[in-house]
Amino acid sequence: MAALAPLSNRQFRLAARPVGLPKASDWKLTAEPVAEPAEGQVLVKVLQLSLDPAMRGWMNEGRSYIPPVGIGEVMRAIGVGKVVASKNSAFALGDMVAGGFGIQEYCLVEDAKRLGLNKIDLRLAPPEKWLNALGMPGMTAYFGLLEVGQPKEGETVVVSGAAGAVGQTVGQVARIKGCRVVGIAGGKAKCDFVVNELKFDACIDYKSGSVRDGLKQHCPKGVDVYFDNVGGDILDVVLTRINKHARIVICGAISQYNNTTPVKGPSNYMMLLVARARMQGMVVFDYADRYGTAIKDIAQWMKEGKFISREDVVDGIENFPATLNKLFSGGNFGKLVLRVAEG
Amino acid sequence: MAALAPLSNRQFRLAARPVGLPKASDWKLTAEPVAEPAEGQVLVKVLQLSLDPAMRGWMNEGRSYIPPVGIGEVMRAIGVGKVVASKNSAFALGDMVAGGFGIQEYCLVEDAKRLGLNKIDLRLAPPEKWLNALGMPGMTAYFGLLEVGQPKEGETVVVSGAAGAVGQTVGQVARIKGCRVVGIAGGKAKCDFVVNELKFDACIDYKSGSVRDGLKQHCPKGVDVYFDNVGGDILDVVLTRINKHARIVICGAISQYNNTTPVKGPSNYMMLLVARARMQGMVVFDYADRYGTAIKDIAQWMKEGKFISREDVVDGIENFPATLNKLFSGGNFGKLVLRVAEG
Repeated sequence: MAALAPLSNRQFRLAARPVGLPKASDWKLTAEPVAEPAEGQVLVKVLQLSLDPAMRGWMNEGRSYIPPVGIGEVMRAIGVGKVVASKNSAFALGDMVAGGFGIQEYCLVEDAKRLGLNKIDLRLAPPEKWLNALGMPGMTAYFGLLEVGQPKEGETVVVSGAAGAVGQTVGQVARIKGCRVVGIAGGKAKCDFVVNELKFDACIDYKSGSVRDGLKQHCPKGVDVYFDNVGGDILDVVLTRINKHARIVICGAISQYNNTTPVKGPSNYMMLLVARARMQGMVVFDYADRYGTAIKDIAQWMKEGKFISREDVVDGIENFPATLNKLFSGGNFGKLVLRVAEG
Repeated sequence: MAALAPLSNRQFRLAARPVGLPKASDWKLTAEPVAEPAEGQVLVKVLQLSLDPAMRGWMNEGRSYIPPVGIGEVMRAIGVGKVVASKNSAFALGDMVAGGFGIQEYCLVEDAKRLGLNKIDLRLAPPEKWLNALGMPGMTAYFGLLEVGQPKEGETVVVSGAAGAVGQTVGQVARIKGCRVVGIAGGKAKCDFVVNELKFDACIDYKSGSVRDGLKQHCPKGVDVYFDNVGGDILDVVLTRINKHARIVICGAISQYNNTTPVKGPSNYMMLLVARARMQGMVVFDYADRYGTAIKDIAQWMKEGKFISREDVVDGIENFPATLNKLFSGGNFGKLVLRVAEG
């Protein structure tokens, strides 16, 4: 361990609360010596970090499902890494782990439980999959779809952000459960991927045509479940096509996260009345005690070749600010991962 | 019956689809001879008609939970009346009935089932109550609150339009079920009525103060069920105060019905995610086979003195257009009823 002490730990800290899209000046890249673990602590070398739309919300002041990141604090992020020093009997040198490490190269885990530190099994899937289908996005998709969306065999499920981290899993799980699955994504490459590789029944390119026409064409029996990652105009259009007793899962609203004007609420929300439908929000942490079940199911489907996932891996912690912003332009293709070090 | 033939039946027909608030020229007052019932038909003399916010929606073109009223057709309305001629063995001369009679003085009921014709028992309550707590508004409140809102004893229930037809019953049923009940209404007189006569725990006057401050003051434990009759800004403010797993019942959005610009969707709908809450629409007709239960409960509560209802009765069919518009300015105090003839 003594050898580690001179190592430098680079960290991205929140310098200012962004107005609109985060700017370079909203971040501060700092460095400090890597700390040595005290009794009960674990030192993790961070290998990969998950960049997620939800991070934008954590940067705002105000009430949400978790407290905001404080000014000057290391930016919150989930990652995978390797235990490089441990004074906690539950974690051994060399263990591969996931947890809320933050945007930094090393994480001194003072409280393993609070940080959500858990071992991951690379025999099931490589590290980046543990940030995608077997990580938070996959858990969000699995429980959001099955518990809140409650799709029944033969129903039509629509998901926005279909090529993204959550969307990929939502659509594939819905397909495996016997639903007709229609994605919404931006651009031909993503739509081709969604249909040809994820095996959705169809995918609507919101950048090249009318989502309304696409829904008419591809959802001839209407929409029973809509899993919404984007909000804005797309949510409003889908609302006009919902069936009686439809379920709308509110998972995200990426189109609205960088607004400097008030969020555009769904103008067509009165369709909930017409259709006796419901719109319901979900937060993945509520299902934490059942992540094991979801991981087992998804890993099994992967093994059987029924389920794939795609990541968009960008190298270098120094690229964090620009890489994060790819999410908001739709510039990422697949689950966005920042690789900080080789495994 | 021959004596009836020369009688004139005045009717309000929809002349044009309104843009914004209905104007006098959107209506046409016509008169035709009163028809004689053929085999299986019933002739009803209309006594009182229910004027409801939902009528505004029926005047619009486009998809809804029931087809729009056609141009030139008698305006749809629910009423109570007396059977004055019958060739249907299920209905006898003198029977008091309720049904979808329309804005007219006499209704020739060709298909009793389709019109929802049913006998009412004036020993339980006078005619206007059958258009209020024992009629559609009461049924909407009862099933919307209990089935969709699912309040539990000790929870806080907030209802907008609290002095109106639906709001009165929502709050009183919630109180009887052991909830803390807070109304939102416009003006001191209505708020006093809601607290002093309907016995809500509190009522917030949206015309004289901040609804946000009122909610902070009167819902110290947050909002578990919000029964929304108004939409717009009030819905948005209540969304900021909802508790985890809150239920928002979407019953109406009277603040938006006369919009000539797009409906204002709830900007704060992402609070559904933060709170893992749901927003769900309802249409009273879905509960038609259980109206009997609700009527029995409400009539019993009335008898026990636990439940009252207030109607705002305006005389004269010729006053229909102006009276209807009172709903949209909040000018009515209690359930708005148009009395067409003395019982």
